[in-house]
Amino acid sequence: MTTRIPPRSGIAFPLLAGQSLTVIDPEGTQVSDMVAYALGDTGEVISNGRTFDYEETILLTTGAFLWSNRSRKMLEIEHDDVGRHDFLLTPCSHDTFTHFYPDKPVHRGCFGNLAAALAPYGIGPDQIPTAFNIFMNVPVSPTGKIEVLPPLSRAGDTIRMRAQCDLLIGLTACSAYASNGGSFKPIDFIVSDD
Amino acid sequence: MTTRIPPRSGIAFPLLAGQSLTVIDPEGTQVSDMVAYALGDTGEVISNGRTFDYEETILLTTGAFLWSNRSRKMLEIEHDDVGRHDFLLTPCSHDTFTHFYPDKPVHRGCFGNLAAALAPYGIGPDQIPTAFNIFMNVPVSPTGKIEVLPPLSRAGDTIRMRAQCDLLIGLTACSAYASNGGSFKPIDFIVSDD
Repeated sequence: MTTRIPPRSGIAFPLLAGQSLTVIDPEGTQVSDMVAYALGDTGEVISNGRTFDYEETILLTTGAFLWSNRSRKMLEIEHDDVGRHDFLLTPCSHDTFTHFYPDKPVHRGCFGNLAAALAPYGIGPDQIPTAFNIFMNVPVSPTGKIEVLPPLSRAGDTIRMRAQCDLLIGLTACSAYASNGGSFKPIDFIVSDD
Repeated sequence: MTTRIPPRSGIAFPLLAGQSLTVIDPEGTQVSDMVAYALGDTGEVISNGRTFDYEETILLTTGAFLWSNRSRKMLEIEHDDVGRHDFLLTPCSHDTFTHFYPDKPVHRGCFGNLAAALAPYGIGPDQIPTAFNIFMNVPVSPTGKIEVLPPLSRAGDTIRMRAQCDLLIGLTACSAYASNGGSFKPIDFIVSDD
């Protein structure tokens, strides 16, 4: 029942209303970027701005909903071992690698991996929004400055979310150096009717 | 040369590379939601996530750039009397009025005003991103909680931004109760080659 996303790759799959998605960090200290679209009507997409509006916080954990650009609840966070995720930053990409790691090999990143995984569903790169970055640890200082620190997740930690409507999910095992402390690791997930 | 946006309305106009856009709060304590698209290629749009990534802060002021979803600089903030703007929240809308102000008359909000102003350019409602909310005052607490407080802008305060490429701008005089302390006011702006 557990599917593994290999290091520095991504996948897309449907998640039907009522199903749960459990994302697992099998080795610890890894990030998984997640995007969500209304299944069959992909102009409706997960929105950090609408979520911040309705949840009145930028830190989403157990009990919070993730909302769409059309003000509809997409997912409810039902269980969360870590309590620290990011919804501020866009997926790492060819351009962010060039910008932040000029001396390292360039990778298409989570953005490129999501674009490839979502293309068969007719979703183009411009339709990839700011992702919900599971386990990503991005503290905001009182002056507004942000830092990307290693995730707080330990081996086996999970987050479980329940679909509020029929969704298409994009999910990655993150490719960036900073977001996972420089160690590229897999991500596991489980889709369940329970 | 000064154009007035009446209270609770919006407008769209081109801003060419090298031109400046000055947004003025003529009476003080008012918000103006701004979105930007690449002129003639409106799949490229202003992105809070990309901007937070590259600027490494969520509080944008003089010297900062506003970036697109394609990792391109769209605008540079050249002058800023207020130093407090929001890039976390989506424009107020029919749905946010229903949610936050159930006892008050529903308005189409900045979202509806932007949608109407952008429609002639072929931009649909789903393409409206999280806006750069000029003068909007949204502090983030250490626990991540956000509040919408009255703007810090006083009568005559301005922000001036310089286009880094040819843009289509959407701009409003905000319609929500919380963002402007309950007083609906106009917004003025100037487009200049200087």
